[in-house]
Amino acid sequence: MEPKEIRVGMVGYKFMGKAHSQAYRDVPMFFPDSPKPVMKAICGRDAEAVRQAARQFGWESALTDWRELVSRSDIDVIDINAPSNVHKEIAIEAARAGKHIFCEKPLALSLADSREMLREAEAAGVKHMVGFNYRFAPAVQLARKLVSEGRLGQIYHFRAWFLQDWILDPDFPLVWRLDKSVAGSGSHGDLGAHLIDLAHFLVGDMSEVIGMSETFVKERPMPSSMTGLSASGSSDGPKGPVTVDDATLFMTRFANGALGSFEATRFAAGHRCTNAFEINGSKGSVKFDFERMNELQVYFTGDDEDVQGFRRVLATDPAHAYMDAWWPAGHTIGYGQTFTHEVVELLQAIEANRQPIPNFHDGIKCQAVLEAVELSIDERRWVRIDEL
Amino acid sequence: MEPKEIRVGMVGYKFMGKAHSQAYRDVPMFFPDSPKPVMKAICGRDAEAVRQAARQFGWESALTDWRELVSRSDIDVIDINAPSNVHKEIAIEAARAGKHIFCEKPLALSLADSREMLREAEAAGVKHMVGFNYRFAPAVQLARKLVSEGRLGQIYHFRAWFLQDWILDPDFPLVWRLDKSVAGSGSHGDLGAHLIDLAHFLVGDMSEVIGMSETFVKERPMPSSMTGLSASGSSDGPKGPVTVDDATLFMTRFANGALGSFEATRFAAGHRCTNAFEINGSKGSVKFDFERMNELQVYFTGDDEDVQGFRRVLATDPAHAYMDAWWPAGHTIGYGQTFTHEVVELLQAIEANRQPIPNFHDGIKCQAVLEAVELSIDERRWVRIDEL
Amino acid sequence: MEPKEIRVGMVGYKFMGKAHSQAYRDVPMFFPDSPKPVMKAICGRDAEAVRQAARQFGWESALTDWRELVSRSDIDVIDINAPSNVHKEIAIEAARAGKHIFCEKPLALSLADSREMLREAEAAGVKHMVGFNYRFAPAVQLARKLVSEGRLGQIYHFRAWFLQDWILDPDFPLVWRLDKSVAGSGSHGDLGAHLIDLAHFLVGDMSEVIGMSETFVKERPMPSSMTGLSASGSSDGPKGPVTVDDATLFMTRFANGALGSFEATRFAAGHRCTNAFEINGSKGSVKFDFERMNELQVYFTGDDEDVQGFRRVLATDPAHAYMDAWWPAGHTIGYGQTFTHEVVELLQAIEANRQPIPNFHDGIKCQAVLEAVELSIDERRWVRIDEL
Amino acid sequence: MEPKEIRVGMVGYKFMGKAHSQAYRDVPMFFPDSPKPVMKAICGRDAEAVRQAARQFGWESALTDWRELVSRSDIDVIDINAPSNVHKEIAIEAARAGKHIFCEKPLALSLADSREMLREAEAAGVKHMVGFNYRFAPAVQLARKLVSEGRLGQIYHFRAWFLQDWILDPDFPLVWRLDKSVAGSGSHGDLGAHLIDLAHFLVGDMSEVIGMSETFVKERPMPSSMTGLSASGSSDGPKGPVTVDDATLFMTRFANGALGSFEATRFAAGHRCTNAFEINGSKGSVKFDFERMNELQVYFTGDDEDVQGFRRVLATDPAHAYMDAWWPAGHTIGYGQTFTHEVVELLQAIEANRQPIPNFHDGIKCQAVLEAVELSIDERRWVRIDEL
Repeated sequence: MEPKEIRVGMVGYKFMGKAHSQAYRDVPMFFPDSPKPVMKAICGRDAEAVRQAARQFGWESALTDWRELVSRSDIDVIDINAPSNVHKEIAIEAARAGKHIFCEKPLALSLADSREMLREAEAAGVKHMVGFNYRFAPAVQLARKLVSEGRLGQIYHFRAWFLQDWILDPDFPLVWRLDKSVAGSGSHGDLGAHLIDLAHFLVGDMSEVIGMSETFVKERPMPSSMTGLSASGSSDGPKGPVTVDDATLFMTRFANGALGSFEATRFAAGHRCTNAFEINGSKGSVKFDFERMNELQVYFTGDDEDVQGFRRVLATDPAHAYMDAWWPAGHTIGYGQTFTHEVVELLQAIEANRQPIPNFHDGIKCQAVLEAVELSIDERRWVRIDEL
Repeated sequence: MEPKEIRVGMVGYKFMGKAHSQAYRDVPMFFPDSPKPVMKAICGRDAEAVRQAARQFGWESALTDWRELVSRSDIDVIDINAPSNVHKEIAIEAARAGKHIFCEKPLALSLADSREMLREAEAAGVKHMVGFNYRFAPAVQLARKLVSEGRLGQIYHFRAWFLQDWILDPDFPLVWRLDKSVAGSGSHGDLGAHLIDLAHFLVGDMSEVIGMSETFVKERPMPSSMTGLSASGSSDGPKGPVTVDDATLFMTRFANGALGSFEATRFAAGHRCTNAFEINGSKGSVKFDFERMNELQVYFTGDDEDVQGFRRVLATDPAHAYMDAWWPAGHTIGYGQTFTHEVVELLQAIEANRQPIPNFHDGIKCQAVLEAVELSIDERRWVRIDEL
Repeated sequence: MEPKEIRVGMVGYKFMGKAHSQAYRDVPMFFPDSPKPVMKAICGRDAEAVRQAARQFGWESALTDWRELVSRSDIDVIDINAPSNVHKEIAIEAARAGKHIFCEKPLALSLADSREMLREAEAAGVKHMVGFNYRFAPAVQLARKLVSEGRLGQIYHFRAWFLQDWILDPDFPLVWRLDKSVAGSGSHGDLGAHLIDLAHFLVGDMSEVIGMSETFVKERPMPSSMTGLSASGSSDGPKGPVTVDDATLFMTRFANGALGSFEATRFAAGHRCTNAFEINGSKGSVKFDFERMNELQVYFTGDDEDVQGFRRVLATDPAHAYMDAWWPAGHTIGYGQTFTHEVVELLQAIEANRQPIPNFHDGIKCQAVLEAVELSIDERRWVRIDEL
Repeated sequence: MEPKEIRVGMVGYKFMGKAHSQAYRDVPMFFPDSPKPVMKAICGRDAEAVRQAARQFGWESALTDWRELVSRSDIDVIDINAPSNVHKEIAIEAARAGKHIFCEKPLALSLADSREMLREAEAAGVKHMVGFNYRFAPAVQLARKLVSEGRLGQIYHFRAWFLQDWILDPDFPLVWRLDKSVAGSGSHGDLGAHLIDLAHFLVGDMSEVIGMSETFVKERPMPSSMTGLSASGSSDGPKGPVTVDDATLFMTRFANGALGSFEATRFAAGHRCTNAFEINGSKGSVKFDFERMNELQVYFTGDDEDVQGFRRVLATDPAHAYMDAWWPAGHTIGYGQTFTHEVVELLQAIEANRQPIPNFHDGIKCQAVLEAVELSIDERRWVRIDEL
């Protein structure tokens, strides 16, 4: 019996568009029991570029008007990975058109907008998913499993940091990710959002937060071209103001009593993509660093006294989530494959008529923390999540 | 302008068949300037299984007779990843049919057979490639670049070990990889072959070798089923003799005066796939471990006195081979992607009318060392490579 | 010519007493050009125990009354490593008696007390030192050198955490370090104080802080015996309240604009003594972990594009501070040796008639941050250091 | 009750003399229950230098004639750490004088000489010890414990390498360690000897070996001064021939069926002192690297399926050998402390009237392997240990 087909239309075709496209392409081969995504149409503003992307990524058609895409009757899911400032409008139209929605994080530029998106999706009765792909690294899934099964005991600490260095050079140009009106925020919403979601996934809800942030380089050259995280510009040309944070830190108290600390920065020289966290519980600890995404460091207090130590678990065994789909034990996967797992969750949820996880509820929870942190920075005080 | 299409027929559909299939599927998306592989047909002995593989991996058609495949006029390249004992016959027929050949390692069960394959390929004027995929990890490419550019100086040492543990359990069944008549040898040909090729790639030719080997578990249960590196069998059922080495070690003297040591084993508990090497030269050193395949450790003697140390280079920057095809810096790739790079080399070589690298010459050089080591073990003496 | 002799009297004979004693014993052998410490007398409340310590550690005499010690005319330096609540009184008496003072951290239980200690020491014109031994790891000295010489550029981030797990078991007894009246605070003053001092040493002054803390286990069995960090007690016996913090976190803004985050906890399973920090600057970064105290990870943005990465510098070369006193390059030192370096600084400063570094000014600066953090926790607000 | 005193006379005062002196100084403080070594006299050829060493290291007297030392009635143990070519004569005289002997490795320049030393020691009924200090790292002791208790199961593999780089520069002068008549051999006897002893300690006897070696730099400047592993010389001055190996590799078959591989080199750029080994058994594996000497990596096949991985055990807990003598858990020791443990074994054995371990039997076993390897290199063949 052939697997069910689920037809996808996607808005966005750059970094995330590429990552999602790969995921759709991989599903039928590596997860043959999953519903099969059909890559119907891709949409973007630059007609030539989007046609080229369609050809390269394997989409059946290319459009420049997302409203047209959303209204097509041959599409089941709208995948939104355009810049953050257009998420809301597209998502709401998609919901109204009865499409399931797979939206990149952050859901929107504000908590209010995010909640509106959820309301519309719920009103329309569609499935909704938010793109927190790091959950889908098998090593992170293992961390979750250890917590859920109580193998780490009561959780005391969660500390996480997402460190990058791609804008360390003051002459790196003013790309859209550095423009508040498009990106919403800087490191905080881009990187911190992932950490917050991991915290929710692994530890649970937060009750209050306090943060601090900084923009180290206040002005940058206007960009002449950009794609993904790369861009070029001239240090002699005109400059514009950086309107987002270069770095944001915050502390939190979780509802279960654990303490959390978070740091997101694009000014950590030597860190290309250190998305790392550690959890300490009464029975054990885990450590993760995305630059070694196939590994989880695991410690148990119950190990024999003379051989206690963090175990470097290579999460590529059949016992690890998703790994029997790929290669024999010891053969690693990469960043791209986290999206494949994410898309499999989306497709299987649609087939099973349940909400995917993470969904808009998770996106909203993340957004609430992002905003609470921003408020705590503005007002220089602790902010309770339920204030918002 | 559309890229040129190159039509592929493949024999084999298990572990390597899956890896190659993914590679062909990925090329058009990630390497759009490369000729585009067209997945015409896949071939295997079990009609139902191969049909299923064709469907799952995306091949246009499925066959059970490789002779039929080889004789098809709509195919340009024959990709051979069936068990080692059938490589030779298929490759020779493919050459005679004027097909380019992409053959998994080891080329054949003997040096003589390998040489015959090369002769036939050369007589037919076709392109030939051998599947040493580990060369295509960007970190390994970086090691090669550092050596080639003289940045490590004169090479003194090469040490390499390929450690696995998948047959550590004495009840693991007698799969085909443990049967000399099918696999040719055990750890030596399976794992050691990769190390030897890396040594050739990174350091150069060897002049003499001496080895030792052992089969720790002499008998194993007959398998009831097997795929990839997994299998099942009953420890109570009938047993058969293991006819290959569980572990093989050897030392070598390279033509350039460097000393080499090699170890390949499937009895290294805790090592799922540690394919690791180190090179020491007069100006620096490098270290690689496939379990952390995105990293190369690099040391330079010329660094300032107070900050000398091995650098952990994450080979995911645009400066690293193949990486601008994938994701922004810091976003890793996995095992599967090494095959994508390998296939790109094949396709680009065919388009440019040059031999791919590595090709049958490299396969033969590897085979010569494999056999020299085996002879050195049998006769308990140093064997010069040019004796063979 | 014989080196000058400097006569020491020490109060305290447990964990720190042992560490200091070793240091004095090692100086003449490893730093023969330093003034030679003469271990005149050791003082503690338990006569038998202190006699035993004198014999074991090599002190000429043992006393039970520190006033007697301080008044002895044959002593030049008073070394104070008794519990924190007695530091002040002893230090002031020592100053009034004209003795130089070497006092363990934290200087006292309050900032006011610390300042009084400094005033008295300055009034008496004696030398004063505070025991921040981690500064004296050669790898930390290297970090300082890189910062001082501008090789890391402008500093953007400092993050530090001191993680231990020795009281993770709720049945671990209520030792003096868990009693506020004796210890002043818990993880904060014990572990956090070291991090704060390292921050001062490596980055500079802080302008404001905000913290949070928690006592996860509120009651513990009364101890039946204790020494160093070990103790025993019965989980069935009487319990008492834990009056200090198990964990304290805080964020800071440095005067130079850098952002800092700090975490000190005794509830991090698997961490016996992870005293770790990272500094990110505009030209490079460094990372340190005391569990691998001979190493500093160093990154430079100026490295060639294809070989950028954190260098694992083994700080055991002659180019590294203090190391030519010990062994050839590559031969590591341990925790104990940091105290030897510390004592060498003390002795050389006395000989050169200058204040040792770190001295009471540094102790006070640390104390001010400790208290500012506590105030910020009590009042749930940002506290400027100059408020205190 | 005072511990028994054992009076020591030592020949040699450079690198090893310093290491041993520290050990004797540390024993009374850190191992108060051990017999107390009394540092009676130190002996060397250069009167002024040895007097200086006596003063610095804390020896009661200094001599230039070792025969005088050996004949002194107030000495119980002769500690020999002069260059290897004088070990034999001194040891035999010491034995004849009824002194216990503590001799640095290698015991002598030949197996025959080593055996003669043992015969004399046995005839005299004295205790004899050989200086394989690396056994005494707590992490190595843990490895031994795991093997002895069967927790690693049947041993399949031992691989070891001792990598240094201190003579990588061709202008490094011709120090005594590069002169065969004084040192016996180069990397082989200096570094390889330690690996061989560890193999004996951890795995057991070897049955046969085959080796290879190389001297990469054949001539070097004559030295103008030297101490420890440092020296100076002029690259313009006269040169002399290097008469020892720069690197020696060998393979072995152990009596218990395990396979071994060994590599000792002084030409491994970036390795100051990488004395590392790995053991693979049927139930687990361990890995050690002296540059991180407080750590042992430990893997067990019996761990739960989803959390299998090498544990980084910090061997500083009370459960680890010797560690309760030092600091609380997590506080590391260094290279020097391995000698303290070694000397404790010597003193306790003398007190208990048993032979210390390792003793001359172990030294001879090591020497036999060293010579078997050399013979195997000369004759280019496998050599059985019992041939010698």
